[in-house]
Amino acid sequence: MELEFIQTVLLQLFTLILLAGIAGLVCERIRIPPVIGEILVVIVIGNTALFGLLKLGSDQEVFQVFKELGVVFLLFAIGLETPFSELRKIGHTAMAVAVLGVLFPFIGGYALTSGLGFGHIEAIFVATALVATSVGITARVLKDMNLTQTIESRVIIGAAVIDDILGMIVLAGAIGISAGGASGLADALVVVLEGVFFVLLVVVVGGMIIPKARQMKETTKTARSINDRSGHRRVDAIGVALIVCLGLSFAASYLGLAAIIGAFLAGMIFAEFRDKWPVEEGFEPINRLFVPFFFLFVGISVNLNSFGGVLWMAVLITLLAMATKIVGCGLGARKLGSKSAAIVGVGMMPRGEVGIIVASIGLSMAAIPSGTFAIVVFMAIATTMAAPPLLAWTFKRKIGLKG
Amino acid sequence: MELEFIQTVLLQLFTLILLAGIAGLVCERIRIPPVIGEILVVIVIGNTALFGLLKLGSDQEVFQVFKELGVVFLLFAIGLETPFSELRKIGHTAMAVAVLGVLFPFIGGYALTSGLGFGHIEAIFVATALVATSVGITARVLKDMNLTQTIESRVIIGAAVIDDILGMIVLAGAIGISAGGASGLADALVVVLEGVFFVLLVVVVGGMIIPKARQMKETTKTARSINDRSGHRRVDAIGVALIVCLGLSFAASYLGLAAIIGAFLAGMIFAEFRDKWPVEEGFEPINRLFVPFFFLFVGISVNLNSFGGVLWMAVLITLLAMATKIVGCGLGARKLGSKSAAIVGVGMMPRGEVGIIVASIGLSMAAIPSGTFAIVVFMAIATTMAAPPLLAWTFKRKIGLKG
Repeated sequence: MELEFIQTVLLQLFTLILLAGIAGLVCERIRIPPVIGEILVVIVIGNTALFGLLKLGSDQEVFQVFKELGVVFLLFAIGLETPFSELRKIGHTAMAVAVLGVLFPFIGGYALTSGLGFGHIEAIFVATALVATSVGITARVLKDMNLTQTIESRVIIGAAVIDDILGMIVLAGAIGISAGGASGLADALVVVLEGVFFVLLVVVVGGMIIPKARQMKETTKTARSINDRSGHRRVDAIGVALIVCLGLSFAASYLGLAAIIGAFLAGMIFAEFRDKWPVEEGFEPINRLFVPFFFLFVGISVNLNSFGGVLWMAVLITLLAMATKIVGCGLGARKLGSKSAAIVGVGMMPRGEVGIIVASIGLSMAAIPSGTFAIVVFMAIATTMAAPPLLAWTFKRKIGLKG
Repeated sequence: MELEFIQTVLLQLFTLILLAGIAGLVCERIRIPPVIGEILVVIVIGNTALFGLLKLGSDQEVFQVFKELGVVFLLFAIGLETPFSELRKIGHTAMAVAVLGVLFPFIGGYALTSGLGFGHIEAIFVATALVATSVGITARVLKDMNLTQTIESRVIIGAAVIDDILGMIVLAGAIGISAGGASGLADALVVVLEGVFFVLLVVVVGGMIIPKARQMKETTKTARSINDRSGHRRVDAIGVALIVCLGLSFAASYLGLAAIIGAFLAGMIFAEFRDKWPVEEGFEPINRLFVPFFFLFVGISVNLNSFGGVLWMAVLITLLAMATKIVGCGLGARKLGSKSAAIVGVGMMPRGEVGIIVASIGLSMAAIPSGTFAIVVFMAIATTMAAPPLLAWTFKRKIGLKG
């Protein structure tokens, strides 16, 4: 029986969320980061007959919208963990870790990929994908080991905040260079400045408006208690957060930056009011619905058949991705002693979903081919999986010497 | 500048959620049910140049998916307020109120619309749209007046549970008759029986499986505390609820019933575990994202220019909708005395979004024309707006006599 359009979509959503849930469960049991499980599952689906059987991806436009919204809401969630006010508290060490941890992978990544014969723009996108740390994995490992109060933990988490912001600015530059062709440094500079200006404008204006919106919310408490059964509460955090997230994503996209930069900034604005006005839990179901479509896109885009030919490049770039963060961040944290510097370097190593998102933008702009995309996915998975055991080992090494 | 596809979608989402939020706010200030405000706003948008300006509805497929998911998640939320276990506790009075409150509007609605010259199937759909009470508005009014503990309140809320279930079965029958043509009572009976069987199967099986899933959840508490930063928690209520909701919606749609029937049943299953495993709040953001698209669809489908010609019919059907619920439900509650029976009848009167959803299914099946859809929307708005003042008046009349 031929399915109707809407039936196909319901079946796709059902299947994807179910598979993502099962993958996550299995990963937790064998203590692998769930994000890795999701990516591996979709790569298998995208490369086998399962893809057709599950009726996935049969409507391109709907698929594209869900995938794009998945990335937007994912970056909003990442922004939520990056409060701007934290920047003032961050010490010189964390700042040095972040800056060197961006410079080393970018320069090293560009040099290596250029040396391997990649084109200018392609090399820039790969280098950009090497920049942003996905600190979620590290944070979880530190929490599991009860180490969140150590100096190394605080430096890593602080550095990751700046690392994320720098990553967005580098991405804005990469998109500008790619969109404008290789037409010169001046054009790229304009886009970078535009990106920086947009970031600052949003953070300053957002910092002024949101507290007022929150006050308004508090004066309309009576109104808030009036819900109708469609689950609506009017002046509440989720509604405002959705509006700000979508509005800034559109604005960023319209200005020629990536939509995710706007989403990230929206998250940063709400990160300021995290304690009083929590939106994190509220966004969880939305992410559950949309993010699997992004991972499915990753799975479809990675072609396992042709991956054999680029495997050695993938290994090379992965080693570079590890080395540049360990050396760059380690240099930034050298004051803490070599053992602690190693911990910080390893903690900043996982690239996770952020590197993949950057590469996916390059792929959709046709700035990188699918083979290169697969290399970045490999690098993201490998750095993310290597971090937890290495982190445990470096911490034990340090504590062992102390004790 | 021409917008890219994804930019248009972001702008649409932003605009719709913003407008829905503003409409809700304004309605709360002037004490009108927010759902009415949303519907009125989208009717204005759909009938003016605003529609083009806001770039709404420019992609049909994406729009259709969001609208359909909006209805699915809305019915899930309604199901969440309909716990199956409550049925055992419901007294004879509430049962009589529900059954007579379904029979009177259906028979009256069919007779009147047939008399007005509507076709067989069209009359059945209008009659079906008159059946289901949207009890959310009444529940809120009762809560605002501190009357939730009165016998009338308990009868209304109890009757609404059965009313919803009967409404879904009547809808299954209407869809069966419409899809099979007017080919006879036997075919319609098969669909109704199929609907009843599906409902019972889901409730029985769901009642067996879900408690086990919840137990599993409790044993994996350690796993649950491990979140990654995309906001994922694996074995949790929201994930399971999404999977069950989408799965049953697909199953119901695949069986030739409406997807919303499956969504409603999924909600009913989770209503059983409401205290221990709350999913209501979690679905709020999802509803915020999708439901405005359903209302926008309503707004586009109601043509104000041609509404003048059917206004008298709309008024007639609205009066019938009010009278049949007041008389039918009042008869069911006659044991409570005439004053209390009037309260129950008035409380069961609002049709709200449920009547509109039923009519929208008829519209998408081409079983009713857009003029008839507009009549149902008018009826839903009028019955919903009339209920709160009438309810306050009937309660005051009763209390006044007592005191």
